Amino acid sequence: MSAGFFITLEGPEGSGKTTNRTFIAEHLEQQGHQVVLTREPGGTELAEKIRELLLAEHSEPVAVDTELLLMFAARAQHIQQLIRPALAAGKIVLCDRFTDATYAYQGGGRGIDEQRIAVLENFVQGDLRPDLTLLFDLPVNEGMARAKQRGRLDRFEQEQQTFFEAVRQNYLARAEAEPMRFRVIAAQHALAQVQEQLMPVLAQIQAQVQRG
Amino acid sequence: MSAGFFITLEGPEGSGKTTNRTFIAEHLEQQGHQVVLTREPGGTELAEKIRELLLAEHSEPVAVDTELLLMFAARAQHIQQLIRPALAAGKIVLCDRFTDATYAYQGGGRGIDEQRIAVLENFVQGDLRPDLTLLFDLPVNEGMARAKQRGRLDRFEQEQQTFFEAVRQNYLARAEAEPMRFRVIAAQHALAQVQEQLMPVLAQIQAQVQRG
Repeated sequence: MSAGFFITLEGPEGSGKTTNRTFIAEHLEQQGHQVVLTREPGGTELAEKIRELLLAEHSEPVAVDTELLLMFAARAQHIQQLIRPALAAGKIVLCDRFTDATYAYQGGGRGIDEQRIAVLENFVQGDLRPDLTLLFDLPVNEGMARAKQRGRLDRFEQEQQTFFEAVRQNYLARAEAEPMRFRVIAAQHALAQVQEQLMPVLAQIQAQVQRG
Repeated sequence: MSAGFFITLEGPEGSGKTTNRTFIAEHLEQQGHQVVLTREPGGTELAEKIRELLLAEHSEPVAVDTELLLMFAARAQHIQQLIRPALAAGKIVLCDRFTDATYAYQGGGRGIDEQRIAVLENFVQGDLRPDLTLLFDLPVNEGMARAKQRGRLDRFEQEQQTFFEAVRQNYLARAEAEPMRFRVIAAQHALAQVQEQLMPVLAQIQAQVQRG
């Protein structure tokens, strides 16, 4: 049995993460891999309930620490119930957002000290980190326009342009700091062109999983 | 304006915390203090929603880290929205359970390493600690019998006797380690006798708040 492989997909709403996640999963399954599709915050029944609390509007301001701790509470549940068992069973886990999103949104966007995020990352994940992270990068205006077309915006989607600019810059800085783990996909192009960018990544995944 | 004063009430279900909290509050109000009654987990609308997740039964096992992080997420919200503002306004905060309960239930009961709890305590509370903690101590059989009389048991109340023994011993060890902060109340007695034990404590609170 091969070791599992943990892939995360990052980027703003409207960047095509979900569509391309399906494309990647189908491609990997055709090559004979078992693939688990999941997302954060969420991925288990309890973690999805925590997600609802995170995305809902509340009658009181949500403290930044509360948001951060809820995010990691959902993550702890997701890791124990789904991610670690799937990896231990040799599966490929394809997860829509993970801890890079916490750094980008709560760190870059809300201005939480990254050291505080790192405390909880180590607390909850131990040594678990993604093997590969695909960043679907998109100009902020484009992402906001696409998200609005989808209907009612959640608590995060209602943030302003400066928030999303900070999120984007944080994502790009993280990709630059860890070039071995990140692949940046230019997501403003038509789907066919995006998937063309994914083909060498898929070949690389295939090679890495076989080595694993 | 006098500085605020932060009192926590600890002990198992059925130990009389709620009844005695009212008694203490009325006594302090008669002496001219402004008193805020609150509880954990909970105390704000969002924190009460997190409480519901904590007490409910779920279709999947709840990871110990998830439980711990949810507890501190509720606490972060409670501190920012209610406790710190009340203390800053010179009020006495009377809180039914606080972080000692996390050490007793999650540490003593569930066996989580106390160092891990301390990481989150420092993360969320900074230097905020109770000024005074009243531990309503009760033999485990007595507390379980009283809790059962109240009807349907929540996820914590369904634990076994060994769990509650560990909780009680952890509480007592904490009281012994911090005798300046803790007052242990023998809660198995009739209400009048319990309140008799509270009278010197109330006199001490009055003295401390005036000095504060």
